[in-house]
Amino acid sequence: TAPLHLVSRGLSLKLQAAERSAALGTIPSWSMDGERDAITRSFSFKDFNEAFSFMTRVALVAEKNNHHPEWFNVYNRVDVVLSTHDAGGLTQKDISLAKAMDEFASR
Amino acid sequence: TAPLHLVSRGLSLKLQAAERSAALGTIPSWSMDGERDAITRSFSFKDFNEAFSFMTRVALVAEKNNHHPEWFNVYNRVDVVLSTHDAGGLTQKDISLAKAMDEFASR
Amino acid sequence: TAPLHLVSRGLSLKLQAAERSAALGTIPSWSMDGERDAITRSFSFKDFNEAFSFMTRVALVAEKNNHHPEWFNVYNRVDVVLSTHDAGGLTQKDISLAKAMDEFASR
Amino acid sequence: TAPLHLVSRGLSLKLQAAERSAALGTIPSWSMDGERDAITRSFSFKDFNEAFSFMTRVALVAEKNNHHPEWFNVYNRVDVVLSTHDAGGLTQKDISLAKAMDEFASR
Repeated sequence: TAPLHLVSRGLSLKLQAAERSAALGTIPSWSMDGERDAITRSFSFKDFNEAFSFMTRVALVAEKNNHHPEWFNVYNRVDVVLSTHDAGGLTQKDISLAKAMDEFASR
Repeated sequence: TAPLHLVSRGLSLKLQAAERSAALGTIPSWSMDGERDAITRSFSFKDFNEAFSFMTRVALVAEKNNHHPEWFNVYNRVDVVLSTHDAGGLTQKDISLAKAMDEFASR
Repeated sequence: TAPLHLVSRGLSLKLQAAERSAALGTIPSWSMDGERDAITRSFSFKDFNEAFSFMTRVALVAEKNNHHPEWFNVYNRVDVVLSTHDAGGLTQKDISLAKAMDEFASR
Repeated sequence: TAPLHLVSRGLSLKLQAAERSAALGTIPSWSMDGERDAITRSFSFKDFNEAFSFMTRVALVAEKNNHHPEWFNVYNRVDVVLSTHDAGGLTQKDISLAKAMDEFASR
């Protein structure tokens, strides 16, 4: 667990091995990125309208939590990579944003 | 039916009595506005995020068809009035936009 | 000033007379609503595209701060009313959101 | 020039050498993509809010014209590639969308 002085400052720490396994188990549609300590998923929608409104939902959550995705869009497809720049790798923030995306995409 | 010279210019004509009844029958969640020749519906969502992404979907359709709603939003609620200004009342454009909104809101 | 136990819980308090005057002086384009303890402004843009992207900017700020506007849009016009429901009237949150809107609209 | 039966069906044709030079001269901030018959530009904004509202403006135009960008966003940056899939390369549609993006980004 994180040292208290970090927790109280709200910093995110990289997930360690055990936490990471548990966390990734909750987002089975995501994969580890081949090159970085990051997770990735490709979403496919009916059309651009549906894809962009998904992006709007995610944008509102991202801005609220001050944690933003790297994402690529073309027409109905949205490819996402999540990692926490400040922490140099995967943190709980990424897992939370991934779950929010999964929920938005499943509706 | 519309005079051919109007149809060919893409103008929308106010729905006449019989068309209007048939059209309104396809959007039972909408009501006639009490004051104008317009239809109205109030949508309720889980939260602002869901409400605003609904608005984004509608905005994309509205802009594509160059036919825009009058709408009021507060938090999870979106109140809509549809009418066709150029035609001075309800047209097929309003029925189509209402159907698109119903579909977006039901997902 | 607010009792400490309220400040520490992050509650917003209604602006009192002196604060209110000072605050309103910083947002001269806004008026007091005629019926409620709220401020109001009507924004006018070039077209729907510009109006809706303004709304998107505001939506992102509103969601981030968990403080949302009441707003009405038709085509290029956006009419806004700001008040803090929990506080039963105007608070610093409304002044801040009004300033953000002014800035977005002036660009 | 395009055969009439193509023009009348609204198809876009790849820009030929002379047209291409003239067209690219009107969008000096864009470069030819190194690998495809496409143009590319990277936009940088103040923050995510500004970047995403730029994307919303572009999304509304793209959907209206049924011609969509390939784009990548991370925080305040938006990297765009434009090409016309149906035509197998650069068309007037790409030039028009590039100009709209330039205009939106300059405000």
